[in-house]
Amino acid sequence: MAVIGADVADRVRAGDLVAAAALMRALDDDLPGARAALRAVYPHGGHAFIVGVTGAPGVGKSTLVDALVAAARARSERVAVVAVDPSSPFSGGALLGDRVRMQRHATDDGVFIRSLATRGQQGGLSRSTTAAVAVLDAAGFPLVFIETVGAGQAEIDVADAADAVVVVTAPGLGDEVQALKAGLLEIADVLVVNKGDRDGADRAMADLTTMLALASRPSRPGEPPRAAPALIRASATGGNGVADIMAAIDALRAAPADERAARRRRQAVRQITALVGEQARAAASAAIGTEGAPGPFASTVEEVAARKLDPWSAAEALTGKTR
Amino acid sequence: MAVIGADVADRVRAGDLVAAAALMRALDDDLPGARAALRAVYPHGGHAFIVGVTGAPGVGKSTLVDALVAAARARSERVAVVAVDPSSPFSGGALLGDRVRMQRHATDDGVFIRSLATRGQQGGLSRSTTAAVAVLDAAGFPLVFIETVGAGQAEIDVADAADAVVVVTAPGLGDEVQALKAGLLEIADVLVVNKGDRDGADRAMADLTTMLALASRPSRPGEPPRAAPALIRASATGGNGVADIMAAIDALRAAPADERAARRRRQAVRQITALVGEQARAAASAAIGTEGAPGPFASTVEEVAARKLDPWSAAEALTGKTR
Repeated sequence: MAVIGADVADRVRAGDLVAAAALMRALDDDLPGARAALRAVYPHGGHAFIVGVTGAPGVGKSTLVDALVAAARARSERVAVVAVDPSSPFSGGALLGDRVRMQRHATDDGVFIRSLATRGQQGGLSRSTTAAVAVLDAAGFPLVFIETVGAGQAEIDVADAADAVVVVTAPGLGDEVQALKAGLLEIADVLVVNKGDRDGADRAMADLTTMLALASRPSRPGEPPRAAPALIRASATGGNGVADIMAAIDALRAAPADERAARRRRQAVRQITALVGEQARAAASAAIGTEGAPGPFASTVEEVAARKLDPWSAAEALTGKTR
Repeated sequence: MAVIGADVADRVRAGDLVAAAALMRALDDDLPGARAALRAVYPHGGHAFIVGVTGAPGVGKSTLVDALVAAARARSERVAVVAVDPSSPFSGGALLGDRVRMQRHATDDGVFIRSLATRGQQGGLSRSTTAAVAVLDAAGFPLVFIETVGAGQAEIDVADAADAVVVVTAPGLGDEVQALKAGLLEIADVLVVNKGDRDGADRAMADLTTMLALASRPSRPGEPPRAAPALIRASATGGNGVADIMAAIDALRAAPADERAARRRRQAVRQITALVGEQARAAASAAIGTEGAPGPFASTVEEVAARKLDPWSAAEALTGKTR
């Protein structure tokens, strides 16, 4: 098993991408020294602007992120992408794997792309995501995209982890997706109708304009009121609208200091709470043992499977808690 | 605040749907007496066959479930649906709300439909889902559908909660969805290409046939080998293929006793583990306090937001644990 070098934190801070990649892999695998290195690089971050890009499957998020990366490179800005892929529930492997687009930027050391599998964990974002973003931030990338697939928890998580959220939709995905948009509107800073040259794009733009006019946009507790999201029609494959999206992102980057401070505080609350909860969950799971070994857990499982005991009472009996 | 009646458990067991609905609402809101009533009804369940129906947004899951409900009713079988909707991250409200289709079956007391919001909790399935299924099972429904929106965690959870999983796809959702299918293949017992009259349906059927021939289908630990999923082309709006899907579900219902026992044991393990973890997470969150109140949490958040402390060390300091 590889052990991470003692100098990895210094190398990451100096912008060494080989070291950054090694540290991210080591964090994924929880290798000795990885967490200490993460803690050592953490104070050197805080300068990156983190953009979440989310939306339902099939709307063209990857293509859009690729176009935004190219736009950043065209003005010589270094850019990183953390792509969170749904993974196989049993084998744990990432499904999308090494992406074709990674080839496109393979010879450009101003671009760093990292695919992370969610590994079937609770919650939509990989636990490695915030760690990977912290490493890339410390390595000096001024702009980091987090791309998430799916509808549901991942979108809520990305809103907590990112400085700005781009929600991508596309025409013709049906009423269900239409309904999903109401939730997405609440987290969106930039709202993109991608595949804007397709049938139904006019309708999608009109619907969203109406929804934006009607929607309440609740402030987060303790934070300033939020502006309505920018609504942009795009065709990422043809490059249409990409400059507008980048301009909207740049406007968000120029947010006043109080907004930025409120965002940092919210990110800190969510990260700490998630870590505390995850530690507690893991400790509790370890404490009750595994169903394979003889013991209280195995016998309790048999009782529940035979319907002699309900799962709620079983959980309380195993943890010694009652309510 | 309504308090649940002492006789609700008896009424649920007698098949009283008003009582069942009241108990599910009470469980959602964690009203006094609700958990005791759930425990009282639990031993009377275990007879329902639970079918998870999942797939990406826009593939037509709701329409398909509606058609399956009609098929069950055509043979006079009572049927219940638990529809898990993504909810607003801030307001907590379900987006799809009372569905149009609920109207269709509104006067048929052989059908019970319950929409649950995920409420932004960790994990893809609402914590209320398993409780709602337990209530419907105890109330005597022989067939219960769990419908989940989204790609990712919800699909993994539904595979643990259900006796059989129907994965729904549709043509023309792009490469991303295509890639997602590899994960879905692992959990599918029945694989449906819906909207089978659309362009691309032939291609989707051919692709899936190839993938099924190539895919390894790992057994779950301690369980018998699993048969390849049935692949069915359907058009739920026109009713095509619905009888075939129902026949595939019926074949799974007739599974041998050892398969059924292994499934019940797996469901018990996952339910107990999830409950133990959730209890621990909630207890840990409560123990560290809230960021609004002065105290260690509030000051730690300020330190992390100012990047003087990293979130991993902060979580450990708050819980008194180190590693």
